[in-house]
Amino acid sequence: MQLKDTGEFGFIDRIEPLCKIHSPDVLRGIGDDCAVIGVSPELNLLVTTDLLVERVHFLLDWQSAQVLGAKALAVNLSDIAACGGEPKDVFVSLAVPDHVEINWLENFYRGMSDLGDSFKVSILGGDTTRSLTDLIINVAVTGLSKKGETLLRRNAQPSDIIAVTGYLGDSAAGLELLNRSLKVPESLSSPLIHAHLSPYPHLLEGQALARSNACNAAIDISDGLSSDLGHICKQSGLGATIFEAKLPVSEPLKRLAGQLAIDPLEWVLNGGEDYILLAAIKPDRFGEIRLRALAEGWVLIEIGVFDSTPGIKLVKISGETISIIPGGWDHFKSEEPSGQI
Amino acid sequence: MQLKDTGEFGFIDRIEPLCKIHSPDVLRGIGDDCAVIGVSPELNLLVTTDLLVERVHFLLDWQSAQVLGAKALAVNLSDIAACGGEPKDVFVSLAVPDHVEINWLENFYRGMSDLGDSFKVSILGGDTTRSLTDLIINVAVTGLSKKGETLLRRNAQPSDIIAVTGYLGDSAAGLELLNRSLKVPESLSSPLIHAHLSPYPHLLEGQALARSNACNAAIDISDGLSSDLGHICKQSGLGATIFEAKLPVSEPLKRLAGQLAIDPLEWVLNGGEDYILLAAIKPDRFGEIRLRALAEGWVLIEIGVFDSTPGIKLVKISGETISIIPGGWDHFKSEEPSGQI
Repeated sequence: MQLKDTGEFGFIDRIEPLCKIHSPDVLRGIGDDCAVIGVSPELNLLVTTDLLVERVHFLLDWQSAQVLGAKALAVNLSDIAACGGEPKDVFVSLAVPDHVEINWLENFYRGMSDLGDSFKVSILGGDTTRSLTDLIINVAVTGLSKKGETLLRRNAQPSDIIAVTGYLGDSAAGLELLNRSLKVPESLSSPLIHAHLSPYPHLLEGQALARSNACNAAIDISDGLSSDLGHICKQSGLGATIFEAKLPVSEPLKRLAGQLAIDPLEWVLNGGEDYILLAAIKPDRFGEIRLRALAEGWVLIEIGVFDSTPGIKLVKISGETISIIPGGWDHFKSEEPSGQI
Repeated sequence: MQLKDTGEFGFIDRIEPLCKIHSPDVLRGIGDDCAVIGVSPELNLLVTTDLLVERVHFLLDWQSAQVLGAKALAVNLSDIAACGGEPKDVFVSLAVPDHVEINWLENFYRGMSDLGDSFKVSILGGDTTRSLTDLIINVAVTGLSKKGETLLRRNAQPSDIIAVTGYLGDSAAGLELLNRSLKVPESLSSPLIHAHLSPYPHLLEGQALARSNACNAAIDISDGLSSDLGHICKQSGLGATIFEAKLPVSEPLKRLAGQLAIDPLEWVLNGGEDYILLAAIKPDRFGEIRLRALAEGWVLIEIGVFDSTPGIKLVKISGETISIIPGGWDHFKSEEPSGQI
């Protein structure tokens, strides 16, 4: 049996029993955005890691080395954001094939470093070795979060409002534009491709949600809205209802969908790599947090509500309610570069 | 220009200026066995990471999945040992090609987990994705060391005794036996191949050296004695003299060399992957520490002395003194699987 038969999440279920936890300091191991480990009476250490493989996650001609370097870091920072943490240190492992030159690698580091500097994150080393075929990039990031203010996936409550911190589906549409040669004007393709190649980690948002004491659970949308909402539902033992009319769709995505005469809903629900946050907000605090967010320069958009009925229900604009099955990305089932990390 | 032109260490010199340190808590970044970060008034956090690539570092038919899993963890634990730390948590990223089955992966995790359990190390997660060609394994390990008892590469002093905690060269000979079909009896090849495939991290040794307050610097021998001694010399601004007669060579290695009518010195000096520790010991404390080691069930073997004359000098058994140039492994210069991690 191969991974494409079980998928990544089925594989995690199989190896979890093999992974014994030996310390009471470990608060979360496998199964959250970050591992969470108590390191002092006040602070938790967060650790996350992501592996990117050429031709599976990216093609070199999609972007410059700097843009890829920034993205390799951003997707890890997004995991720290989902826990409400402050990122601290970065560790980079590279396996480098002959077709990648030193100049390219320096620019890759420059891209990581420029984004890292803006969040006061230090790049502390790693490992560099040889690859016979594809460029391999593993980035691990540590962060710190306050005890009692660390956001997890598992504490959502029935009646909590489901909110997101940005547009859905842009990145997936951008990936589609990179993978297929669709004839659309650059003014339309450019913001969508940018959303895919240059995600910006919602650290400000995550930290504000963690401080607010109004957020019961959070996740970053990397696999796709349906899949990541499914993770919170599964770990919190809840169901959820979301409203098509409330899902935030950007103008460029609406226009692209119009031009191609397709419904953008598939990208919005299952596209993945949005790297925005999805949060479970206490209903009596939502209005206040939403307004505070606006004052601080970020957005919190209500898209639905958690409930005790298993499954994810989508109320369509037509009024019809349908069940949706988490259908985000799983690399083992995809045959072309997914961009997905 | 490619990495094979600069080598790994030349590349590190180029990217180091790009990696700004943003926190006074970072005590060591790039350039030691582990990054060292202060996390509490008493403790330092250690972080190390190693990337293994199929056909560059290993072949799947060299060993079982369990043996490879244990080694992937052991080489990281060896870095924690070199800093005198206690390992805590493990993060594993895998990129899995079609030729690797779920059963194999479970056994790989079992191998990691069995070794991890014996050191009370918790496997906390990571990332699993797809590879189009080779199996890729990245392991990152965190550990803790006491402030004031964290061993680094840079504090060796002139007159410090150079000591190692085990045999040199066995692993390199084992790799040679795996790579070439040399006709030697199994009783001879088996311990050498075992030394290559199943290194045992010298955590007990590193922790004892750290506690002793007699060890000014340490490193684990992964690149090879000459190369790793060179790292301590460079970072401490010293030279070193080692004595051929004192270099610990195992019986199987002597017998293999005899059988092949070759000098084992090349393996001993430059072989790499010994995963024993090399330490700079205060000369007035050496006798005491060596005896204490014996009582605790480990060994500390004097092989030379640090001095202020640049370069590494080898006093041959013949009495002649020659200069040796650090010549351990660099993947970018090797064309066959090096085993080297």
